Amino acid sequence: MFITFEGIDGSGKSTQSRMLADHLIRAGRDVILTREPGGSPGAEEIRRLLVEGDPDRWSAETELLLFTAARRDHVERKIQPALAAGQTVISDRFADSTRVYQGAARGDLRAKVDLLHREMIGLEPDLTYIIDMDAKAALGRGKARLSGEDRFEDMGLSFQEQLRAGFHALASSAPRCTLIDGTGSAEDVHARVIAHFEAHHGG
Amino acid sequence: MFITFEGIDGSGKSTQSRMLADHLIRAGRDVILTREPGGSPGAEEIRRLLVEGDPDRWSAETELLLFTAARRDHVERKIQPALAAGQTVISDRFADSTRVYQGAARGDLRAKVDLLHREMIGLEPDLTYIIDMDAKAALGRGKARLSGEDRFEDMGLSFQEQLRAGFHALASSAPRCTLIDGTGSAEDVHARVIAHFEAHHGG
Repeated sequence: MFITFEGIDGSGKSTQSRMLADHLIRAGRDVILTREPGGSPGAEEIRRLLVEGDPDRWSAETELLLFTAARRDHVERKIQPALAAGQTVISDRFADSTRVYQGAARGDLRAKVDLLHREMIGLEPDLTYIIDMDAKAALGRGKARLSGEDRFEDMGLSFQEQLRAGFHALASSAPRCTLIDGTGSAEDVHARVIAHFEAHHGG
Repeated sequence: MFITFEGIDGSGKSTQSRMLADHLIRAGRDVILTREPGGSPGAEEIRRLLVEGDPDRWSAETELLLFTAARRDHVERKIQPALAAGQTVISDRFADSTRVYQGAARGDLRAKVDLLHREMIGLEPDLTYIIDMDAKAALGRGKARLSGEDRFEDMGLSFQEQLRAGFHALASSAPRCTLIDGTGSAEDVHARVIAHFEAHHGG
């Protein structure tokens, strides 16, 4: 089973990915927790080119090619082998981020995003949780981390608001996606994820 | 005018690119000499991921995406602005290398190479010189440079022989391509390039 978490920067999806992984491991499942961009040694090297530096370091088109390169490496060297071995894979971001980020930045790129995904990736998650947060609150949280990985946060509040709208549109168009209210404590949000998971995929 | 030099590793195309650039500059042209993978600051960072390290560091598919990302950055930040300003651009390698290298490594990838070029790059050279060399002699010369950029040379002689056959096929299918005998001194080869150039594009 392949589960992904999505959402804007600072929405809490990394924390929620980890909490679901811990929950499933305690329940006896064999779980791999991974992330994008990155997740495999090669893809982590590409990640550094993407998340650090000036916002205008790459055009949206070059960015799309780099994200797809990182995803291809991640899928063929980590995700596919784990799924083939019967493991549950949880990824903090996957292809939906590319659909929404590049689509939000530049509407006319969405067709190219879909083409590259179809030709070079192919894989879709079984289940996607989109952690929904007010863009201003999420941006404050993301920047406060001082991770040095602020390239997308540096694109500003209106960009994050476009991203949030993009994730809402995705949630209503793809049945595998579930929008989760991201307000409250990490435990509150985790309880919402678990309630959905147990109702639909428990046992 | 956009001119490219192509050929297998160690064929002498970098030297020939430089010699033609010098010749045209002496003739009063405004010339930019560049190279791939690389040529712009971002693309040079991607280059390091491609030309260093183990041969199996990336799959052919991931490699194709990284080459296309580097080319997109190079075209939009260096080649297109130079052409728009009326400069002559000479590039040591361009899209034909991707067609032949990824096509030689994996025949079924050629359709994806063409699709990515059409969707994400589009630009073709006006004129391409393919420097033709015996694969064994070229490989000895390439490895002797000790540049640390040996990832493709490390794929071995039979790979270089497949590449040479790929360049021959390209030369007979694309009218913009001219095969140049790469034997003899650098001056001998340069004289062959100039003889062709002056006959077809001189003045």
